[in-house]
Amino acid sequence: MALKNKVQSIFVSGWRKNAWLMISSSRSINTFATGFDDNRILKSPSLVSIDLPDVWNSSSTGYSELSAHKFASEQTARVIDGKQIAEEIISKVAIEVTRMKKTIGEVPGLGVILVGDRKDSLTYVRNKITACEEAGIKFKLTKFSDNCTEDEVCDAIMRFNVDSSFHGILVQLPLPQHLNEAKILDVVKLEKDVDGFHPMNMGNLAMRGREPLFIPCTPKGCVELLIRYGVEIMGKKAVVIGRSNIVGLPTSLLLQRHHATVTIATALTPNAEEITREADILISGVGVPNMVRGSWVKPGAVVVDVGTYPIEDSSCEQGYRLIGDVCYEEASRVASLITPVPGGVGPMTVAMLLCNTLESATRKYNFV
Amino acid sequence: MALKNKVQSIFVSGWRKNAWLMISSSRSINTFATGFDDNRILKSPSLVSIDLPDVWNSSSTGYSELSAHKFASEQTARVIDGKQIAEEIISKVAIEVTRMKKTIGEVPGLGVILVGDRKDSLTYVRNKITACEEAGIKFKLTKFSDNCTEDEVCDAIMRFNVDSSFHGILVQLPLPQHLNEAKILDVVKLEKDVDGFHPMNMGNLAMRGREPLFIPCTPKGCVELLIRYGVEIMGKKAVVIGRSNIVGLPTSLLLQRHHATVTIATALTPNAEEITREADILISGVGVPNMVRGSWVKPGAVVVDVGTYPIEDSSCEQGYRLIGDVCYEEASRVASLITPVPGGVGPMTVAMLLCNTLESATRKYNFV
Repeated sequence: MALKNKVQSIFVSGWRKNAWLMISSSRSINTFATGFDDNRILKSPSLVSIDLPDVWNSSSTGYSELSAHKFASEQTARVIDGKQIAEEIISKVAIEVTRMKKTIGEVPGLGVILVGDRKDSLTYVRNKITACEEAGIKFKLTKFSDNCTEDEVCDAIMRFNVDSSFHGILVQLPLPQHLNEAKILDVVKLEKDVDGFHPMNMGNLAMRGREPLFIPCTPKGCVELLIRYGVEIMGKKAVVIGRSNIVGLPTSLLLQRHHATVTIATALTPNAEEITREADILISGVGVPNMVRGSWVKPGAVVVDVGTYPIEDSSCEQGYRLIGDVCYEEASRVASLITPVPGGVGPMTVAMLLCNTLESATRKYNFV
Repeated sequence: MALKNKVQSIFVSGWRKNAWLMISSSRSINTFATGFDDNRILKSPSLVSIDLPDVWNSSSTGYSELSAHKFASEQTARVIDGKQIAEEIISKVAIEVTRMKKTIGEVPGLGVILVGDRKDSLTYVRNKITACEEAGIKFKLTKFSDNCTEDEVCDAIMRFNVDSSFHGILVQLPLPQHLNEAKILDVVKLEKDVDGFHPMNMGNLAMRGREPLFIPCTPKGCVELLIRYGVEIMGKKAVVIGRSNIVGLPTSLLLQRHHATVTIATALTPNAEEITREADILISGVGVPNMVRGSWVKPGAVVVDVGTYPIEDSSCEQGYRLIGDVCYEEASRVASLITPVPGGVGPMTVAMLLCNTLESATRKYNFV
């Protein structure tokens, strides 16, 4: 694993371009994780052994001078109002929940597990509580301190699993490093996996002819916005920046199901902007502020910014504000449609969570 | 579903380009499947309702005249000898099986279900039987006539599921139209899904940090060939032509896990050759003979042909021979490395099946 650690430390120091050169000149990268052991039957290494973090930074992307690109002098992009769409959706969820309560005496229930005291996680959970209250969805938060054990978290999930008044279970990510995220998420009962992160859901999302029980909330929200704003997806070139299991991966899979020609750009893609400039639909979810410059965007493209990077701002109520991956000032002069941060994808993620929770209850009670 | 049927019939008649124009001028394609029903909470349609067959044809790809492209006068590509590599791998599997038998008195077992009398399926199954015999793997074939019932097939799978002498179960595809493929494949016990088609395996293939129990054989074979021929995958542009659940999808997921920048070209990608020409690694699996012309290939690229199209040839033993998606004569003058058909990916698929079956037995017995 020595080379993997070297790669990680290089990324952290921001020498992405130099790291790339180092790696490509080293021994065959296909074997870097395990060595070329002639006793093994196959040369292919295990997948987990070759995993690398998708660490982006904005310092060495080969970006050419701003002056070389002609931007419109003012914003040309129409703004996608995710906040408004999310409110409309939540209102409709509320109507359905009321109808469910009147008709069968049940309401959907969402159980949330929160570990630690990250400010952003606290905010996200608070937003979810507020939205559930608006929609009439029962909500329960189980909190753990930062140094809790895996067993404590798993037990809490299992209690939600067997509690018939809860139809959705969500583990607020990220979890502290000492906890095994995959192991914990696997405890969530598939029928209550409203975040859609269970590999069974992901497989059913990926495979044509199959329907996942739940589509992950953020990608689901992105596509809902595209549809509502009349964006054609079929046959279009879509580029997804980032390949996290919670955003980049499911977003690319969902766009594929909608028949886009999808490319995933990763932190190991040299000159990612050459690829993003070809995109009719550009979706970025890496959490690196202002990484996507105007020069990364094809004129007239649709830009969806999933990035949420907190920066300190004492003038804000929480003491911080969120900025996205996209340099809004530049990109909005090139794109035809763009989501703002905040007020774009974020509210839609919450709205989709409510939809998934309602969907789960609807399925359980066969409610029509 | 009227528009979907129209689309399918247009594809069948080969008017792909005209079909594309028709579709793009019709109402928003994101809603074609379900209509814009304002009573629904979300506008996004269900995924299965928007699925389309990935029907390629070579007639209308916008290919410009052959004379415009300068090919080398003779073959420049090194040929990837899949047959030889497969034989080496099967020999090593045989050694392991012998060791297993001597050490713990067990051998891996593979159960195969075959429905109908397709010549190509019969050939593939025969190849698998021969390979199993070479490797010392126990093999059992359960055959059904073309008009069998779903229950008969499912019962046979369930018998293999509970039979401890079988560690892998394979349903030879394609199945006759009247059988529900997904439903049947779902019956296969996950721990014996040596084809890797179960959505749980697919999800674990897709998600970083996770390991599938089995990687689908054909993509696994493709990557094994790339590694053995010293092809760098990390950071390279890989284009996968076709998005079938058994080839295109898992191949793209596997290449992503190996850190390539992956694009999937589908039958709905306008001017696919503009995209394939950017690929350092080009993998085609659509079953359309000679579709991938020399002009589709970037000079020096690595070309992997997964296509297997049977054409009648009375001079061949089976009465037919296989040709691939790639116009070998042209592509071999542009590419640096190329797989032949036959003798490239095909034998590797069989070898990987044996590896997966051995892996399954190894896991079960904790054999080291």
